[in-house]
Amino acid sequence: MRDAYHEELDALGLQLIEMTQLVGTAISRASLALLDADLTMAESVIAADDAVDRLRDELDHRAMDLLARQQPVASDLRIIVTTLKMSADLERMGDLARHVARAARRRYPDSAVPPKLRSAIMEMGKVAEQLVTKTGSVLASRSLATALEIEHDDDEMDRLHRALFGQLLDVEAPYSIEVAIDVTLVSRYYERFADHAVAVARRVVYLVTGQHPSELAESV
Amino acid sequence: MRDAYHEELDALGLQLIEMTQLVGTAISRASLALLDADLTMAESVIAADDAVDRLRDELDHRAMDLLARQQPVASDLRIIVTTLKMSADLERMGDLARHVARAARRRYPDSAVPPKLRSAIMEMGKVAEQLVTKTGSVLASRSLATALEIEHDDDEMDRLHRALFGQLLDVEAPYSIEVAIDVTLVSRYYERFADHAVAVARRVVYLVTGQHPSELAESV
Repeated sequence: MRDAYHEELDALGLQLIEMTQLVGTAISRASLALLDADLTMAESVIAADDAVDRLRDELDHRAMDLLARQQPVASDLRIIVTTLKMSADLERMGDLARHVARAARRRYPDSAVPPKLRSAIMEMGKVAEQLVTKTGSVLASRSLATALEIEHDDDEMDRLHRALFGQLLDVEAPYSIEVAIDVTLVSRYYERFADHAVAVARRVVYLVTGQHPSELAESV
Repeated sequence: MRDAYHEELDALGLQLIEMTQLVGTAISRASLALLDADLTMAESVIAADDAVDRLRDELDHRAMDLLARQQPVASDLRIIVTTLKMSADLERMGDLARHVARAARRRYPDSAVPPKLRSAIMEMGKVAEQLVTKTGSVLASRSLATALEIEHDDDEMDRLHRALFGQLLDVEAPYSIEVAIDVTLVSRYYERFADHAVAVARRVVYLVTGQHPSELAESV
């Protein structure tokens, strides 16, 4: 049986996983709000971000409290400090989902995404959801294989981000400047969302192996 | 005279100030590279970002070492953990300066900024420089008045960011989609740069007063 201290340490991990669930719901609903120009959905994503912020505050408070009371060293110290960094990444992913929802709200009742670009944005939303689901499972299982999948999903997101700019520049389908601004920002939000998911996965890899994923890839 | 432990704590603060200086140079040179389509300058900003990353790594390593060896509690613990968060903000500011430089490099030998938008971008660059200089002085002096100025400078940056979109949409000066994408991204980089400067200033305010700046403003 684990002692109270280690139970508290485990509880931090569970709260991180809870954050991935909230953030996963947020990005999934934000994508729907954006694609369907659904104002109610957009508002609900914007309002729900407070819960992510609160969870981060609570988690940070508990982590600081553990540091002060238990004076952990070595790997436990590293786990707690890394947890603080991961909660910051996840909180930022919540912000980015909210930004996507705000882009939807700004153009309502129009859609911020023209019909020809819908499938590209839908694909980015799908990859973002996959990423955050996998981030939750890396936190739970510490699976290095899943962490590696996250790297690949992020490469796919970067590819989609670049391809979308190519589509915007397509001379046969001239878009308005307004569409270009909206789509550029939204695409950037998805891309940053993916970057933070990768950051969390890399931090788990570092905790488990003591090596950064790039070093790991080289040593394989 | 301060003991070795407190000297190490002070050294962390000095390293944060050093980071603000590197980041200040980076954003100032990145703005020049962008406005003058100066490839050499852009390359130098991109290359110099490694030094910011190294400084962050070194600072984080020293902070973790202090946590492990000295087992600080109360305010010292808060200082060290906050230092880790501030080094992350400053490292990100370095990334954003590099992104601006990359936007300049991508369009070389053309300029990513059309003549009519130069003054707006120049203004954003100026505010970004002011912000990071003031961030350095807040770290050195812990001046709450300067921290408040940073909040105002950030409001100005947000205003510039919104105004730039207005200029892009000006029907009398139709811009290309390529320009819209570049300018939207660059403007977003400056705006995020400012957000991180504000985050650092707010963390200092919290360390000094135990209150978040918003609570402080309400209690005045």
